[in-house]
Amino acid sequence: MSDTGPADARRRFSLRTSRMEGFSDGIFAFAATLLVLDLVIPAVTSKDVGHRLAEQWPTYLAYLVSFATIGNAWLYHSVITEYLDRADAILYRLNLALLFFVSLLPFPTHMLAEYLSNQGDERIAVTIYGLNLLAISGFIAIVWHYALWQRLVTKDNSEADVRALTSKLDPSLVSYAVVIGIGLWRPGVAVILYLVIALFMIIPFRTVLLELRRRRRA
Amino acid sequence: MSDTGPADARRRFSLRTSRMEGFSDGIFAFAATLLVLDLVIPAVTSKDVGHRLAEQWPTYLAYLVSFATIGNAWLYHSVITEYLDRADAILYRLNLALLFFVSLLPFPTHMLAEYLSNQGDERIAVTIYGLNLLAISGFIAIVWHYALWQRLVTKDNSEADVRALTSKLDPSLVSYAVVIGIGLWRPGVAVILYLVIALFMIIPFRTVLLELRRRRRA
Amino acid sequence: MSDTGPADARRRFSLRTSRMEGFSDGIFAFAATLLVLDLVIPAVTSKDVGHRLAEQWPTYLAYLVSFATIGNAWLYHSVITEYLDRADAILYRLNLALLFFVSLLPFPTHMLAEYLSNQGDERIAVTIYGLNLLAISGFIAIVWHYALWQRLVTKDNSEADVRALTSKLDPSLVSYAVVIGIGLWRPGVAVILYLVIALFMIIPFRTVLLELRRRRRA
Amino acid sequence: MSDTGPADARRRFSLRTSRMEGFSDGIFAFAATLLVLDLVIPAVTSKDVGHRLAEQWPTYLAYLVSFATIGNAWLYHSVITEYLDRADAILYRLNLALLFFVSLLPFPTHMLAEYLSNQGDERIAVTIYGLNLLAISGFIAIVWHYALWQRLVTKDNSEADVRALTSKLDPSLVSYAVVIGIGLWRPGVAVILYLVIALFMIIPFRTVLLELRRRRRA
Repeated sequence: MSDTGPADARRRFSLRTSRMEGFSDGIFAFAATLLVLDLVIPAVTSKDVGHRLAEQWPTYLAYLVSFATIGNAWLYHSVITEYLDRADAILYRLNLALLFFVSLLPFPTHMLAEYLSNQGDERIAVTIYGLNLLAISGFIAIVWHYALWQRLVTKDNSEADVRALTSKLDPSLVSYAVVIGIGLWRPGVAVILYLVIALFMIIPFRTVLLELRRRRRA
Repeated sequence: MSDTGPADARRRFSLRTSRMEGFSDGIFAFAATLLVLDLVIPAVTSKDVGHRLAEQWPTYLAYLVSFATIGNAWLYHSVITEYLDRADAILYRLNLALLFFVSLLPFPTHMLAEYLSNQGDERIAVTIYGLNLLAISGFIAIVWHYALWQRLVTKDNSEADVRALTSKLDPSLVSYAVVIGIGLWRPGVAVILYLVIALFMIIPFRTVLLELRRRRRA
Repeated sequence: MSDTGPADARRRFSLRTSRMEGFSDGIFAFAATLLVLDLVIPAVTSKDVGHRLAEQWPTYLAYLVSFATIGNAWLYHSVITEYLDRADAILYRLNLALLFFVSLLPFPTHMLAEYLSNQGDERIAVTIYGLNLLAISGFIAIVWHYALWQRLVTKDNSEADVRALTSKLDPSLVSYAVVIGIGLWRPGVAVILYLVIALFMIIPFRTVLLELRRRRRA
Repeated sequence: MSDTGPADARRRFSLRTSRMEGFSDGIFAFAATLLVLDLVIPAVTSKDVGHRLAEQWPTYLAYLVSFATIGNAWLYHSVITEYLDRADAILYRLNLALLFFVSLLPFPTHMLAEYLSNQGDERIAVTIYGLNLLAISGFIAIVWHYALWQRLVTKDNSEADVRALTSKLDPSLVSYAVVIGIGLWRPGVAVILYLVIALFMIIPFRTVLLELRRRRRA
């Protein structure tokens, strides 16, 4: 709706980032919270409750991986918007595609939990799940690279910051692609690896290390 | 509640747009995410899982169309609030009517998914669905034309911008009306056409074209 | 947590209103959207779908009344925060009590829809529903009167504005109390009256009238 | 993603608090509203509806405790962000861990409601529920102490304010730990005590007292 002519092209592209942030925060928050609906309370049976809960481990594992992945995606998204100076019409659309896959995640998560203990079906469930994780990671990287390419990022960031963010986003894509491959042979192992990737991206090992080193010197 | 006398009529009408944006972002985000609850995981049967998932195509199609429509409505809504300088008591109400139909959409979506493969019922389901889409589009246009009429839009927009937004909103109403008519004869075709309309409105063909042309010249 | 001594009492009470607005917008938006989950799709039977949908009228009526009430409560809440200059610790708590009853509303709404066509039970369902509506209206009035009493409202509002808001909030309490009484004899009539109250509070009759008169003169 | 070197370490840590607030408000609001889905409407039976509703008391009690706890956690969280000047990468992660336990709460709440009237199972349900409450309280305290330690809080707060917040957060941890212990012997009593803790933290006894005293003197 903002495409009338090349003359005022530059100004027309400028959109505040506040609506994009508000809508994204909403989708991330609901998708993360909706996951809890999949956690099934085992019915009262003769078995003791601890045993019954333990039987639900695939549900809990799927919940944990999905929450960690959405939390992680939000973290990176919030760092990107931190650098964003303004948005344009195409960035809004790319962001919408990212949010589509974020809000879709509860579905493969539910499927994963349902099929994880079922021999024949878990392979396809884990693969679909992995493709969704890859799509989320992929669109975060696309949003970031598009913003860099179109110079929508604010000027007062050092080159080092930009490289640091890029250096974390791009390898995650490769990791997801590799684990999707592993999942075709070993579905259970792949789910564990998805958790490892999410936790590895969430925990800021180097920041903690550098901070500790800095404090020891000071 | 802001109607005590004509003397201070102008000032009383001024409301910040921030609450309207926050509440709208919430409803848009939640309605979009709620759709995922309708995606049914097929029960484990003797058929293989790929086949079972494929049988659910009406659900997935309905999900896709509804998400694209809500995403699209949010896009236009955020462009409108971008231009908005302030809101007034009536704009708040018109916006509320828009949000009513946005938050209602999961219901006809669910009905569509349920009835789409059922001969007799799909006609009425597709018609109700189309009317909901038309209502969303209609109220976005009403909100926009009301804001223009009451001069609530900020001054520093070019006439071209305003015409560009109008030139996209108004034809969409005609398209929806036409497709609702088509749906009475060919319900399945209508659903595909609703997806086409949403994608056509989301993808900024002219922006991309103009941007590419501008870059080639630069 | 902000109660250490009378010396800095005034400053300690000052809280930004932004978090209160964000959290309130979230609760209002989710409660309004959650209502849609109660709209039941009638199962495919031999009866035609139009007939089956028509049988669900109590559900649709309850949905409409609840959405209108929540939308209305949000409208008044956003006007109140428009006047708010700052918040204090007690206003935050009163607002929390209001949000409790807003987020509770889907429950009596569901009960109303379930019991509305059932002779013996509809009386208690309508009464509980009315008490919830009364609590929402009551806490909006309490939040508003508390803010006036503690002079948390911004200075640049005319006395007329403040009286206008008060003159709409307080009668609504009386209306709800009266209709709860009516509901004990005529449950069905009460539900219709709740819709009338909500619509009457939403539609700014006087504003529209005054605006039309102003325009005719200009 | 912001860990490239010690040189620009200080600046890199600065993140706006607005995204963190928006995402947190979303999760808090959604978790609080989602609880309402657990309130079951008793099916129409020969018993009268008042009796049927009364039988659901564990559900209503669990709902009340969880809403009060989430509301309370939001209150303290909003006071913390009131003092926050900026955020850093680690604070974002600690906040994410807090939000994990907030969005998880509907699950043990549901379990509590399901098992509360069941002799053998209620002990484990109450214990898991208590651990979740402890985790929420614990991470709020961790977020607060981390912000103090890293001097992320704004300078213009008095020492008294900071001590006041700390003096309420830390005892709550001890209370939860004690009540978890009590719950192993007396599950029902523990649930009541969790409600007492939440209400005790919500109601600002000292603020009210001091305010009344101040007004009497003025």
